[in-house]
Order: sequence, then C-alpha cells, then structure tokens
Amino acid sequence: MYSLCANGGWILGHLIDGTQAEYVRTPFADTSLYKVPQGMDEEALVMLSDILPTGFECGVLNGKVRPGSTVAIVGAGPIGLAALLTAQFYCPAEIIMIDLDENRLATAKQFGATATINSSDGQAAAAILKLTGGRGADTAIEAVGIPATFELCEEIVAAGGVIANVGVHGTQVALHLERLWDRNISITTRLVDTVSTPMLLKTVQSGKIDPKRLVTHRFKLEAIMEAYETFANAAESKALKVIIEAS
Amino acid sequence: MYSLCANGGWILGHLIDGTQAEYVRTPFADTSLYKVPQGMDEEALVMLSDILPTGFECGVLNGKVRPGSTVAIVGAGPIGLAALLTAQFYCPAEIIMIDLDENRLATAKQFGATATINSSDGQAAAAILKLTGGRGADTAIEAVGIPATFELCEEIVAAGGVIANVGVHGTQVALHLERLWDRNISITTRLVDTVSTPMLLKTVQSGKIDPKRLVTHRFKLEAIMEAYETFANAAESKALKVIIEAS
Amino acid sequence: MYSLCANGGWILGHLIDGTQAEYVRTPFADTSLYKVPQGMDEEALVMLSDILPTGFECGVLNGKVRPGSTVAIVGAGPIGLAALLTAQFYCPAEIIMIDLDENRLATAKQFGATATINSSDGQAAAAILKLTGGRGADTAIEAVGIPATFELCEEIVAAGGVIANVGVHGTQVALHLERLWDRNISITTRLVDTVSTPMLLKTVQSGKIDPKRLVTHRFKLEAIMEAYETFANAAESKALKVIIEAS
Amino acid sequence: MYSLCANGGWILGHLIDGTQAEYVRTPFADTSLYKVPQGMDEEALVMLSDILPTGFECGVLNGKVRPGSTVAIVGAGPIGLAALLTAQFYCPAEIIMIDLDENRLATAKQFGATATINSSDGQAAAAILKLTGGRGADTAIEAVGIPATFELCEEIVAAGGVIANVGVHGTQVALHLERLWDRNISITTRLVDTVSTPMLLKTVQSGKIDPKRLVTHRFKLEAIMEAYETFANAAESKALKVIIEAS
Repeated sequence: MYSLCANGGWILGHLIDGTQAEYVRTPFADTSLYKVPQGMDEEALVMLSDILPTGFECGVLNGKVRPGSTVAIVGAGPIGLAALLTAQFYCPAEIIMIDLDENRLATAKQFGATATINSSDGQAAAAILKLTGGRGADTAIEAVGIPATFELCEEIVAAGGVIANVGVHGTQVALHLERLWDRNISITTRLVDTVSTPMLLKTVQSGKIDPKRLVTHRFKLEAIMEAYETFANAAESKALKVIIEAS
Repeated sequence: MYSLCANGGWILGHLIDGTQAEYVRTPFADTSLYKVPQGMDEEALVMLSDILPTGFECGVLNGKVRPGSTVAIVGAGPIGLAALLTAQFYCPAEIIMIDLDENRLATAKQFGATATINSSDGQAAAAILKLTGGRGADTAIEAVGIPATFELCEEIVAAGGVIANVGVHGTQVALHLERLWDRNISITTRLVDTVSTPMLLKTVQSGKIDPKRLVTHRFKLEAIMEAYETFANAAESKALKVIIEAS
Repeated sequence: MYSLCANGGWILGHLIDGTQAEYVRTPFADTSLYKVPQGMDEEALVMLSDILPTGFECGVLNGKVRPGSTVAIVGAGPIGLAALLTAQFYCPAEIIMIDLDENRLATAKQFGATATINSSDGQAAAAILKLTGGRGADTAIEAVGIPATFELCEEIVAAGGVIANVGVHGTQVALHLERLWDRNISITTRLVDTVSTPMLLKTVQSGKIDPKRLVTHRFKLEAIMEAYETFANAAESKALKVIIEAS
Repeated sequence: MYSLCANGGWILGHLIDGTQAEYVRTPFADTSLYKVPQGMDEEALVMLSDILPTGFECGVLNGKVRPGSTVAIVGAGPIGLAALLTAQFYCPAEIIMIDLDENRLATAKQFGATATINSSDGQAAAAILKLTGGRGADTAIEAVGIPATFELCEEIVAAGGVIANVGVHGTQVALHLERLWDRNISITTRLVDTVSTPMLLKTVQSGKIDPKRLVTHRFKLEAIMEAYETFANAAESKALKVIIEAS
C-alpha cells in the first residue's frame, strides 16, 4: 500500500510543494519514478500520473470488473471517465454511466458506455434495475463523493457484487445493512497506490487505451490562473483535464 | 453463491418447514448433502450445519485472516466464538474479543482469544488501538448486528483491513466515509453459502478444531420448549449452543 | 472441478454415446445445461460447448492473461485460435502466434494476433525473445501437445510467467528445472471444466466476441463422413470448426 | 518479484561478498532491511533471513496449503523442515514427510508431521496414495532437487493439486504430461523473494512458530571451518542449521 506508507505516501502537493514548476525534488524517487518509454506521448503520460490509476485501481480493480459483467459508474466527470476507459480492459458486457449532465453523458457514450442514465429525475435506480433484468450491477463505481450517489450504489449493486468507492467524501453516508447484510456484497475504498503504473504504461504504449482523450484544454504556465478557472467552470467549459505546458 | 441461488438458497426453516423432526425432505439434496465420514461425532456435525460455516465464511474467509495478522471480533456469542475458533486455522498473531458480558469473554479466552475487552465503558476502540500500537485490526468481525458494534468496527479497522459483517442487521448504520474513503479498506457481507463444508469436515475429522466445545446444553425433543427458554435466557444459563436429541 | 468430479465429469462421448444424434440424454443435466438466451445464434453456441471454454479456461484463465501483458500461443489450430479470441478479453499488449502453417498464421492475424512467427526454421524462441526485448512471454500457451512445442514454451516464458498447457500429450516432455527452478514460473494443466460457460454466454450475447468466426464448413447429418474427412484434411481444406446440421 | 529484480535481486554472497563478517554493506538497504522488534531472539531472526521464507514462499505459499488439505513434503532437510513448520500456519489435516534418513523423519515427527515415510524401498508413492485413500496430496513440496524426488511429486499430486518446487535442480526432469495434462494441476518454481518477512516476523514475535528449533549447532567465527565440516557431514552430525557467533 504505497499510498498509506508510514514514511512515504502522498507527499507532493500534500505535505510539501507540488509539481507546478519547471523542476521538482521527488522524495523516495527510486521507488516511485518510472522511465518514459521512447516515443511516448507526454500528454498521455500526464493522464497516467494520477487520474488513470485512480479510476483503474479504486474503481476497476477494486470493483473486480470481469468479462461479461455489468458495470455502473455513478459520476461522469474525469475520474468516472477514467474508470470507464480502463473498465474496458476487462470486456464487461454493459457499462452504464449515470450523471446529471447531458454533455458528460454524451462524452461517456463516445468513450464506450453502452447505456447512459440522467439521474436528475431521481429514478436512476429503477432505470438501472430495469436495464439489468432486476439483477443490478456486478460493479457499482461511486465517482462523485456525496451521500446520494453512494446510496444509489447501494440500491443497484447485484447480489455478490462490489461497490467500489472512488469519490472523496466529506460526510458520513447511510449504509443500509438491513438490506445488504445477506447480499454477499463488498464495499471498497482506496487512495490511489499507483501500483498499476507499469501495467498502464504498457497498455498506453501498445495503443490499447488512449488517455489523451481526457485532455480538453491546454494552457501555458503563465496562464495557469485561467486554467484553474476553466476547470472550475467545467459545466460551461466542458473541461475534463487541463494540461499546463511548462514554457 | 449457493445462498443466493435464484431457485434454491435458504429453503429449510425459511420457505418450508425446518428440521426439528425425525425425518425431513431436503430440496436439491444431491447438491447440498454431505456423507458423514465414519466415526465422526454427531454433535460436532450439528455445529457444522450452520454456525461454524457462518463464522468461518462470513467472518474469517471474508475477513482475510492471515498468519501474523490482528483480528478483532465484536460479539462473543456463539457466532463470534465460531469465528474465533476458525480464525485460528490461519495463525493470526492476535485475536481480540470484545463483548459486554464477562462470562462470554472468559469463554473466549478459553477458546483462544489473546486479549479480551469489556466494551461496557464505551472505551473499546481506544483499548484496541492501544493494544495494536495505534494500527487497529487487520480484520474486524462484526458478530452482533446493531449500529454501535458496526461503527466500532469502523473505528478499529487498520489501513488496508477488512470489516467482515456477520451480524443480522435490522436498521441502517452510519458509514463514516469521510474517514474511510482513503484507508484502502473493504466491508463485506454474506449469507452463509456452506461452500466451506467439505473443508470444515476435514478439519474436524483430523482434530484441528473441536466444535463440540460450543455445545453447552442437551435436551430431548419432547423438552424442546425448555431448550428454547434456556437459549433465550443465555445470559443466565450461559448457553452457547443447545442440542436437541431426536429420541 | 466439474471435469474431474468423481461421479460426473466427462461422460458424453467418453463413457457413453455422444451427441451426434437428434436427441440425447444428458446425465446430471440440472447442473450442466444452460438455457439458451433468446435470439442467440446457434452456431455461436456450438463453439461455446467445448472449444471456447477450453481455450479460455486452460489457456487464458490458467495463463493469467492481464492488461498490458505479453502472450505467446504455440499452435494456431482451432484451440489456439479460441485462446487467441478469448485472450483479448484482458487487453494484453502483445499476442504472438506461433505455427508451422502460413494459412493458420494469416487467420491468426485476422483474429487479433499482434505478431506471427513461423517456427519451421527452428528459430521461434530467438524470434520471440527478440520481439519481447529479451524478457519472453508473461503467458505461454501450449496448444499442440507434443514435446517440441512444450519445450519451446519453457524457453520463452518470462520470469514470473505461466506456461498454460492446453494440448493433449501422449508422451513425457523434458522439464528444464535446471534453468527454471529460480524463475518464479508456473506450469498449469486442466481438463476444461466449463465453469466459465455463463461468463462466455454473456460475452457472446453482448457482442464482445464472435465465436462464429471459427466455423469454416457446414454439413448435413447425412454427410457426416464427408465432414470428418474435411476436418481430417484441415491443412488442405483450411477447416477450423465444422458444423453438422441435424436435418 | 524482489528476487528477480533487474537491478537488485540476489546480491550478497552471490554477486558480491556475503555476510560472514562483523560489518557488511547492504545494497538497496532501504527496501530490504527490517527493524528488529524489541526483545526478539537473534537466533530466531537468523532463521528468518533465508530458510524460513524459502520454505514458506516457495513451498507453502506457492503450494496453496489450506485448512484441512493434505501436504506431502519430499525431503526432510532444513528446507523441508522449514516448509513443515510454516505449513502449519494453515492447519492442513495431514502433513506427510518423505525422506531416506530415519533421524530426519524422527525430527519431522517432532516438528509436526502427521505421518512419515522412508522412501528407501522405492514404494513411497504407493504408501502416500494408500494414506490418502488414493487421492494423493493436494500440495506436494519438492525439497531435494533431483529428478527422482520431483518425479515422485508427479506421482502423488492429487487432481487439482500443486507441485511446489523448492529444490535447486542441476539437470532436467521428466514431466509426465501424458498423465498430468488433464489433472488440473500446477507446478511452481520460485527463488525466495522474502516478501513474507514482515508476516514471518509477526508470527515469530507472537510465538506462533519457534524457528530456533532448527538450530542444532553453534560455533564462534574463528571456528567457522569446523562449522562447515559439521554441516557437510549432516548425516552423522545430525546438523540442521548451524549458527556462527561473531565474537
């Protein structure tokens, strides 16, 4: 568990200054840096630094996505889309994407979702159960971080399934054990460990996934405040990931 | 998942009459009955029918008990004790038993607990963290079925650990994702599948475990109402499991 | 392990008459038959009865194919091609197909192989090591059944990799433990269990795989001897799988 | 796979001078040294440096020893005994020890073997099959390193079982795939990775295992040549592990 290492863990941008600079000192570099394979696209690599392993490790690996299984992803923001892209490594039969924003759902369709559900009418659970013949989703990925979306996952997880939490939560949620105690389910949490970085590098290098599709905007370092604004107004700007170029 | 089989599952004593009779018809018998190995003690086998696989599958297997790990079991009733007995298959370094009843804690000690904690003072979490050098338990087994005991498990689970729910819950519990979202933990639920019955048979047959220790009282079938009373007043009678003899 | 069940296992066409008939009695039918999902192509289902689970279970599952990994399949006959099709469920970076027959290698390319090697010059091992930067294959699938092809797998398996045997062998092979004892490898064997049938059904139903591509010839039941001849002369007829239609 | 790390791996005593000295420089020390827990016996720790993780990782973990399973260990030398000690972490029903030397078999009995077989009459396979009702061993651990003992493992492994190779082999062995191709078995090899050191430390610290029992002789550093002789004449000296004291 690199992320929870007693002496290491999440340091850059958390315990010390981060990487929005031309040069950066990386603690424990010999166990946490990877050599860039020749000819690799640098923007793809930026996606590999955090968002792709987060969606993959916390959502897809924890969620035990399998060939032929049914996946529901609640939240079609960048993290949810990273889970959507990497879930396809395992050929699930269905990937259902749930969000309030039609733009994001349209993007999800382009990224490989087999169905999308706008949850603004409060009927998402019923819609997912209908789509799955009443069984629910084998994997329910929570990629928002509020009680309503987590509790939606509780309603739609199939017997024997997994709720893989990816969202950062600021408050408690209601866990309905009175319904779930006998359903053979798991709930998982995880701070990204980046243990999957070597595997992800190989999938990008061999063209199995194109993480650059997550990049919607690019800014020079001197325009960084504009970049932050664009990201903050994602609903309007339709920003997914924003690249800052060093010079 | 035998227990959640769409056509089978939990039938005897649930959907049809149970087994408190001299003869019983068992649906799907060819996939759910086991031949009694010669010379095996019948009382040990009664313990194998439900309580031992429940503690083992829902608590120990789901809880990923491992050599050298730390296990906390909340609830020292028969199910908690069944988890305690079967956890020892995997040589954990510590098994901490938590209950309100000193008698049960004394029994737990005899059954192999390395430490016991009486939680009546509301300080159980602090005591467990102290015992584990602040790390908490790798496996926290909930064997009661109320919000307070489940939430205790949330407080004591170590980073990377598992909360294995065994208790039957009648109401929701508060899941503190604001503390747990980044702790790499799992929460599991399960209705006993009895998939471990062949393995448990072998451990009993080879003397690795003595489930008969759970039997505290024996009654004839005609005294069954007395048996129920004894079990209902377990605090006084110190009953763990009660055997009904057919004749 | 259904395939090695003491009372069941491989019965049809082995211990009793097989299925080349209009009607057939299936022993243990309630635990070994699957309901055909509505609208499914029957020829695809024939491929699901044996060849696809064989390639998948013995080759791909045993071989632990993973996203980004390197797979080498020795033998591009129908079983090797079934392994090739189902290996793609896990997005390996490279799938290298090895055979003596250029036609089969061309088919393998169409079925998704990223590289093909004609081993008739005796240089296959060197070619595979070159393709993999000297590392070898994470998964080496043996789909022929003779000593030379198994020993090729021993030469090309990467440290930490798996040799998944699928071939039916009639004689012993030389296992070079003097080179392999410290390489952290596994060698696996398996008689297909068909435990993956429900999963494979879902992948076919959702269009993730098209097993019908394995069907090259079709015959009426009355022309069955011709069908056998065609299959026996596969090098000339380019037969992969042959369908017999009941009427 | 620490042991096969491209830049690290087995260095001390292999690529550079070893540790028979008062001081030693350890390459990659920050990822390969462990803090000695207070109060731990130093002789027990010497057993943890190599022999215990070797028996445990290559034999017990690779061999998937499980509660109630049957284990056969071929070779009752120090490594085989280390496997015997650590196999008991998982409560197998039977541990059968096979060797040519009655002294070693007697030691194995004291260390927890449930049965011992002297293989000098060439009937070991028949004896093991008899002991296991014809099923064979779920785990067969090869702890010698010659063809005869590996091939014995091939004869006694049960359907679905594992042959876990621990021995260092200098020559090829005959792998009888004509008998094993359809038996759902695995064969594993491994150079000890010491990934289990933290777990083993905890089991020793909590008294679950007493590796000091492997120490039969002690010598001062100046008598090291005598120590080597004693170890070389193990049959006579009954030496298992020999401790060299620095001063």
